[in-house]
This record gives sequence, C-alpha cells and structure tokens, in this order.
Amino acid sequence: MNCSPIDHIAIVVGDLDATLALYTGALGFEIVYRETIADQGVEAVGLRAGEAIVELLRPLDAASPIAKFRGEAATKLHHTAYRVADIRAELARLKAAGIRLIDEEPRRGAHGNTIAFLHPKSTGGVLVELCQKST
Amino acid sequence: MNCSPIDHIAIVVGDLDATLALYTGALGFEIVYRETIADQGVEAVGLRAGEAIVELLRPLDAASPIAKFRGEAATKLHHTAYRVADIRAELARLKAAGIRLIDEEPRRGAHGNTIAFLHPKSTGGVLVELCQKST
Repeated sequence: MNCSPIDHIAIVVGDLDATLALYTGALGFEIVYRETIADQGVEAVGLRAGEAIVELLRPLDAASPIAKFRGEAATKLHHTAYRVADIRAELARLKAAGIRLIDEEPRRGAHGNTIAFLHPKSTGGVLVELCQKST
Repeated sequence: MNCSPIDHIAIVVGDLDATLALYTGALGFEIVYRETIADQGVEAVGLRAGEAIVELLRPLDAASPIAKFRGEAATKLHHTAYRVADIRAELARLKAAGIRLIDEEPRRGAHGNTIAFLHPKSTGGVLVELCQKST
C-alpha cells in the first residue's frame, strides 16, 4: 500500500434514491455504475470523483452488518479502498506484517474489481479494502 | 463539484502516535505533512495515497466537536474533501442550489489549502469539505 491511491470511499445510505438525487443534483456528481452485489447484500452506486469513486451502498436487508453499522444516521462513511496492482502479493505482505485479514482470498467487488478487506481491529478501527482494477 | 477529485479523507483518531505507527508501518503509508491547526483545535497528519491524502486528525481538546464525534471508537471516518479549482465560485453555486454552508467564506486548512465545509444536513449526513490547493 506504498502510496496506493484511493480507489473509492464507501458511504452507507438509508435512502439511496434521495442521496443519489442530492449527489447527482446540487452536489454535481456523475454516476459511473449502479449494480446489485447479491452475495454482499448491497446495491452500489459509483459516482465519479476524479480518478476515484464515491460509492453509495444500500443494504438489501435491514439485518445486514452495514445496515447495523449505519444505525440511526441518514448516511455514514463506511470504508476506504486503496488501489493496488497485485492484490495477492499485497495481502501476503500485510499478513506477514501481522495485519489480520477478513478476506484471505480476494473476491469480486463492485464494478468488476477484485477486492479484499482488512480487519478493522488491525487497521486502527476504520475498515480498509484493497482493490485491484479489472484488466 | 462536477467529478471533483477526492483531495483527502479525514479520520479522527484517539491515539495519533499509535495510529501513525500502524499506517506508516505495516500498512505502508508515507507522511506528507504534520501540523497543528490551532484555530480548528486539531493536529493533522497527511499521508500519501496517490494524488490524494489520508489525513489523521487528533483533537487538541477532549471537548472539541471531533473528539465528541469519535466517541468510544478508536478511530472514525470524519469527512471527505473534494478538490475544486475555484472554491468561491463553487460555494456560490452550491449556495444557489440550496446547499447550506458551514463556511460562507473560505478559510485556511491543513497543508496551506483553502477550505470550506458544507453542512452535513445538506449533504445527506456525511460532512463534505471543499478544498482548493495552494498555488
């Protein structure tokens, strides 16, 4: 993660349509993708922010962990994702450095990316994702 | 904010030295700046993340709003900052679009930048900062 760029930041939202109307309206963002990722229980909308993405996440199920994370807030910053060139190599390096991994094996994320989460207990409390762009 | 790049994301931390040791150690980030911004009541450390910065914020005072925002969490994502070319023009545009501003007038932020915050009640709940790079 040596100077890895921010790939995206993710915001959990309660009312996706209202938040999206705000971001694409007055705030002036543009939609890059909108997709449902069933195995993660979310609908994700990616908004262009330069080379990075602001990703709005709507839990598909009120019992999902990210719905609980949001709690009573209208929206809540959920995680930061950093772009790496070789996600397997970076996971191996981080594991060797003592970082606890949520995903030992990379998996599919939004927008066709390959992702893996680090455990927030190892990253100072904020959830961190590694993200390798699809080629 | 039409596709404005992410300038930085800010994380409020309780123990700055411990978080910094983690970020510059196992996680592999590099420090770009470290400074105290007395009028905002914070010590800020900027870490390189590609063209963006991950900014760790330590409240100088336990009674400060960001200390209260952090609450019992070790660290907590606090705001997202977007880079704009003309912060006064963007504030005027947002105000005309009905967005409530915390800062009607831009002010000095970390790293010599000129900044202004939008009110989270107008941005869906997540605090948003506009940031114009120093020239």
